[in-house]
Amino acid sequence: MITTDICIIGAGPVGLFAVFEAGLLKLRCHVVDAIAQPGGQLSEIYPKKPIYDIPGFPEVLAGDLVNNLMKQIEPFKPTFTLGERVEHLHKQEDKSFIVETVAGTKIACKVVVIAAGLGSFEPRKPALENLEQFEGKGVNYMVIDPEKFRGKRVVIAGGGDSALDWSIFLTGVASELTLVHRGSSFRGAPESAEKVVTLTEEGQMRLLLKSNVTALNGNGVLQKVTVESEDKSSTEIEADYFIPLFGLVPKLGPIENWGLEVEKGAIVVNTFDYSTNVPGVFAIGDINTYPGKLKLILCGFHEAALMAQSAYSIINPDKKYVLKYTTVNGVPTL
Amino acid sequence: MITTDICIIGAGPVGLFAVFEAGLLKLRCHVVDAIAQPGGQLSEIYPKKPIYDIPGFPEVLAGDLVNNLMKQIEPFKPTFTLGERVEHLHKQEDKSFIVETVAGTKIACKVVVIAAGLGSFEPRKPALENLEQFEGKGVNYMVIDPEKFRGKRVVIAGGGDSALDWSIFLTGVASELTLVHRGSSFRGAPESAEKVVTLTEEGQMRLLLKSNVTALNGNGVLQKVTVESEDKSSTEIEADYFIPLFGLVPKLGPIENWGLEVEKGAIVVNTFDYSTNVPGVFAIGDINTYPGKLKLILCGFHEAALMAQSAYSIINPDKKYVLKYTTVNGVPTL
Repeated sequence: MITTDICIIGAGPVGLFAVFEAGLLKLRCHVVDAIAQPGGQLSEIYPKKPIYDIPGFPEVLAGDLVNNLMKQIEPFKPTFTLGERVEHLHKQEDKSFIVETVAGTKIACKVVVIAAGLGSFEPRKPALENLEQFEGKGVNYMVIDPEKFRGKRVVIAGGGDSALDWSIFLTGVASELTLVHRGSSFRGAPESAEKVVTLTEEGQMRLLLKSNVTALNGNGVLQKVTVESEDKSSTEIEADYFIPLFGLVPKLGPIENWGLEVEKGAIVVNTFDYSTNVPGVFAIGDINTYPGKLKLILCGFHEAALMAQSAYSIINPDKKYVLKYTTVNGVPTL
Repeated sequence: MITTDICIIGAGPVGLFAVFEAGLLKLRCHVVDAIAQPGGQLSEIYPKKPIYDIPGFPEVLAGDLVNNLMKQIEPFKPTFTLGERVEHLHKQEDKSFIVETVAGTKIACKVVVIAAGLGSFEPRKPALENLEQFEGKGVNYMVIDPEKFRGKRVVIAGGGDSALDWSIFLTGVASELTLVHRGSSFRGAPESAEKVVTLTEEGQMRLLLKSNVTALNGNGVLQKVTVESEDKSSTEIEADYFIPLFGLVPKLGPIENWGLEVEKGAIVVNTFDYSTNVPGVFAIGDINTYPGKLKLILCGFHEAALMAQSAYSIINPDKKYVLKYTTVNGVPTL
């Protein structure tokens, strides 16, 4: 069992800066994230992209901002559990909490700060009656190991970059590849769309535009998909795999079951200290909502600072905190 | 007459960053400050001091932060009126404003953003009955040109660095120098306090501890000050100048007469968009107050971002703004 003052869920920029603001008040933090490295989306999705709206940085690469924040919180010696999604929030009788991850790691803490950004990302699923029945038995939402599809008959659905890129890639791997897209033009990169058209003209893959997959069939495992075109004509395609690539949607995930007030996928907080309706649980950064909310990193930084004040009162009910400026006192160490 | 979208009062870090947030929404800004250079207190009081709590900067010199912010707002070509304190806010019939400085400079704008930090600083005055009568006639609250005191009899009051430093400096300039301090030890730097004691022992200046100036006398101009010691014995000292150096106190100044709701010297705002009770006037940074308020630069940055959204609606009543991320779109230019 890990014991700490504050368990921060989410190691994105706002979660990391919360360690700093808590540290200034001499509160210890443990940070949990489903992703294996700190930085959240900044490290995972766009580490080499410049950000222009972090105050004081005319331009900063997302990855550099994360590195800077890691250095900034170093004096406070935060501890991390990375690569494990949080699963349960166990409220204790003394009003403290035990946060538990999918892997069973337990963190005992007095305050929980949810800084989980847009939550965990899950694939957007098509509305097909017996979809779940074939999950893992022919239906895949992402391509992890392309070799799995070698020599197989594959149907991909979608019109974005993933659908285009994987169609192009798997054309040389699958025995038969069909791309089904409901529109007549693609949202993905024009060069990829062109390549798909060329491969189709060369007979290396099949492209069905203005069409949708409307049914899945099979005996235990997937065997056929039904494709209906705009003119209502329908085709049956023999398939070992169906890969719908309709993008990712952010999900709160297990946090949704923690009794928190949620509005349109975001946790409702007040602007006094960004506390939720559950005493002792705060939500900061992109995952929260309040009147005027902007999903900006710099707003999450502010929310972290105000949150820390109330966290201090919960953790030290008998002490009064007086704001000290770092220019006067520097940074304390833990 | 200068014409702009937003007139920002205060060129401190928060006022400067407001230019950036407004600029992202293609709103033009004009910035006014009483101080002759941008940066507010950061440039004026502690340019060489490190700040540790700006997110993403493990350590940054206040002056460097100002330079970075100036560079960050460059694409938006803000204009400045520096070295002129704002005086009047003229509300126009069409709900726009004309901001006027002490020097008579006029800025026509649709939105006013007060980012004036702690306001303007004014000397803390001693409670002496006829003090005002001698202001400019022997009573000075700051030393601008030391030569003014050459060959004169000077009484300084105070126990901080200013009082110590000016006593030491003017000992070589004034014909007679007396330092009066109500305590028996000094708040200023120990080396300065030691130097004052040495100069006193050498007979180069006079030091009256546990004493207060209790009266001023003169015929049109200052001639004598009365000093009373803790044991109630009193002394009359002939003096051409009396310089009370009791520090500076922040004051809202003329802004106080603009009809804004003020609480304990700060402007009351709501946390939706940091607007004041006067429609079209916003207050961000250290000058505002709301439940949970922390006087931190990073909080002012957040306030600037939310303010800009509402400023956009006021300036463009018929357009709908959609938040764009700088990682996706970069920074527009004006």
